[in-house]
Amino acid sequence: MSESNSSTPAAPREHEMSNLILALDFGGTKLSAAVLERGQNRWRALARAPSKPHATAANDLCLSQALAAEVLGGARPAAVGVSFGGPVDVPRGVVRLSDHVVGWENYPLQARLEAYFGAAVAVDNDANVAALGEFVYGAGRGCESLLYVTVSTGVGGGWVLGGRVWRGYGGMAGEIGHTLADASGPRCYCGKRGCVERLASGPYLAEHARNLLEARPKAGKKLRTLVHGEVEAVSAKEVAEAAAQGDELAWEVLKRAAWALGVGLGNAANLIDPQRIVLGGGVTKSGERYWRELREVAQETARSQIQLDIVSAALGDDAPLWGAVALAETLLEGHAASLL
Amino acid sequence: MSESNSSTPAAPREHEMSNLILALDFGGTKLSAAVLERGQNRWRALARAPSKPHATAANDLCLSQALAAEVLGGARPAAVGVSFGGPVDVPRGVVRLSDHVVGWENYPLQARLEAYFGAAVAVDNDANVAALGEFVYGAGRGCESLLYVTVSTGVGGGWVLGGRVWRGYGGMAGEIGHTLADASGPRCYCGKRGCVERLASGPYLAEHARNLLEARPKAGKKLRTLVHGEVEAVSAKEVAEAAAQGDELAWEVLKRAAWALGVGLGNAANLIDPQRIVLGGGVTKSGERYWRELREVAQETARSQIQLDIVSAALGDDAPLWGAVALAETLLEGHAASLL
Repeated sequence: MSESNSSTPAAPREHEMSNLILALDFGGTKLSAAVLERGQNRWRALARAPSKPHATAANDLCLSQALAAEVLGGARPAAVGVSFGGPVDVPRGVVRLSDHVVGWENYPLQARLEAYFGAAVAVDNDANVAALGEFVYGAGRGCESLLYVTVSTGVGGGWVLGGRVWRGYGGMAGEIGHTLADASGPRCYCGKRGCVERLASGPYLAEHARNLLEARPKAGKKLRTLVHGEVEAVSAKEVAEAAAQGDELAWEVLKRAAWALGVGLGNAANLIDPQRIVLGGGVTKSGERYWRELREVAQETARSQIQLDIVSAALGDDAPLWGAVALAETLLEGHAASLL
Repeated sequence: MSESNSSTPAAPREHEMSNLILALDFGGTKLSAAVLERGQNRWRALARAPSKPHATAANDLCLSQALAAEVLGGARPAAVGVSFGGPVDVPRGVVRLSDHVVGWENYPLQARLEAYFGAAVAVDNDANVAALGEFVYGAGRGCESLLYVTVSTGVGGGWVLGGRVWRGYGGMAGEIGHTLADASGPRCYCGKRGCVERLASGPYLAEHARNLLEARPKAGKKLRTLVHGEVEAVSAKEVAEAAAQGDELAWEVLKRAAWALGVGLGNAANLIDPQRIVLGGGVTKSGERYWRELREVAQETARSQIQLDIVSAALGDDAPLWGAVALAETLLEGHAASLL
């Protein structure tokens, strides 16, 4: 850990040992910062702000530092854990890119934040961090292995295997969103057809609903009512709501999304046989019928000897922040090697 | 390790410390036993025998013990590694079942062999053992992680992740053969449609060729010539041979098989991002065009940031025996925990 430096805004007023963990989350549309006293299980302070439209990496970094200053209140953190919404070269602490914000290409975020905060920093991508969060503090507590999958704007995943985050040889493990569910399905932005993400993510699911509403002018009455007839306003949320009300068109769409996710989960279970599968993200709040369908399809896709245990994430949108705490703890406890 | 017992045929004549490793392979159609001096890289003795048609577990065990006696020549092994062609409960050393031979249900093979040989025994299923063999002695040497896949009568796989065999929570990891490649494909014996095994395994591939030959009486001339017009005699071997000679029907069949395998490998890479993928089994001897196709499809299925390294197995049919040696070594070196 470097010495405090009076030019850094978050430097401590004196040389006390800090017992504060700072957790930062660089999401695609939202930034968060939170502070926790070590050993506590609730935030001492938490601040969030939406990322500005057309923000650059520099904008987001500046905003994140402002949020951090707010929650730290002038104190210095003992360690900083960072969840980043894009691929990260973890050993080097370098962000590879962001799909949402320009300027993050090959950005040395760890080094930059270490200099700024005068504390050790660990950075990883949001799916891995959320998986770690659920493993240490959430729905995966007590498990030896888990697959965490978030289903919202995209579909991403992270593994904890044998108690460690499994990142893969090139740091690309967990890309369940771009495993193939239906070879003859619609084209995904990645170039392939029928990826899990192309069928199960919120925006694509909503697009499917809008297309069906236009093709079938008399169908989907409840769904139309929810958006006051404005088909263009249909999002995954309304599809789930209409399906829960018994709208057949909405259920057809949601069922297809649940099927694709179930295939992806069943295939993943056949390959790795994790103890538990934890699902987070907005789309997984689509109701019991959605969950029943995806569990059924996942179990049918998995071999019969594999007993799937698919549960809802416990930490919700805070999973990346809690995972960031767990990341930071590994820096302090000196067992980075075992958990990372 | 238990004391020697004069009633066991393989007991040593005196109380010398053995430096011999015994490797046993219980395959679906063939049994093998081999002996190696520790630290050597070639067999001191090796014996094989076909499993008799309609053999039971008792028959195969008896035959395996006879082969072991032959290769041991009266010596006692220091440790025994066993590759079994079916699912194994590794911590308990119990065979769950064999798809080919009756009587193996819940069979305590480890305990039985320990009593028989008076030595420590480790048992695992053939795909895991072959993966370990390639990792320690074959095409995976120097890798930190690999996926081993065998493509022959079935399609099975084994993982080494972070230097350890990854068996999964219930010991079912590696079932790449029953991941889904084509949701609208033909029905697999497991009940699903379009499993990798249903499209890429030898018997199914041959069935596909025979069906096409019957449906298109004028196509597949080179393939027909290879079997002297006896369509029923077509196996995967002739399909590969005819495809290499430019037979279009044979290539259509082989290409479909390569496609399905490529999808399975690409999906697996997206999920786990292993350093290397090692392919063994008879069907992978189907020529350059087959390899080019499966590599292309696997790379297209994987995210572009994942650089696939797909190579041929180095140990051929002996991978399970070499893996059994590696298993036995873990018993002797006391690092079972790290490798197992």
